[in-house]
Amino acid sequence: MTTEVIKVQGMSCGHCKKAVESAVSSLPGVSDVEVDLSAGSAKVTYDESKVKPAAIRESIQEAGYEAV
Amino acid sequence: MTTEVIKVQGMSCGHCKKAVESAVSSLPGVSDVEVDLSAGSAKVTYDESKVKPAAIRESIQEAGYEAV
Repeated sequence: MTTEVIKVQGMSCGHCKKAVESAVSSLPGVSDVEVDLSAGSAKVTYDESKVKPAAIRESIQEAGYEAV
Repeated sequence: MTTEVIKVQGMSCGHCKKAVESAVSSLPGVSDVEVDLSAGSAKVTYDESKVKPAAIRESIQEAGYEAV
């Protein structure tokens, strides 16, 4: 298991938090996602053998936010 | 029909806009709701014989925003 903190731009409210958490947690291999709105970041715990970091960033982009 | 512009505090993104529009438009007697995010307001068109202005404000509060 790997835990990574990803900076996410564009999240402004609780709905945004939920949208990102829901997008990332739906990926197979992701076991935990926790968005910190005030920090503008998502802490993601995942199994590196099942999901690539790039796929996590992609799911954030697809939800409408900028993973930096 | 009456059209009223209600100031709404706390809306920050497209999700907030949708949450307020969905809450207000679900009231019987409301025929149109249009949130202007940058102005922080909701333009509501409703039938005064079916829905009271206070009920509209209440639905906004219940969605988690401040109707002022």
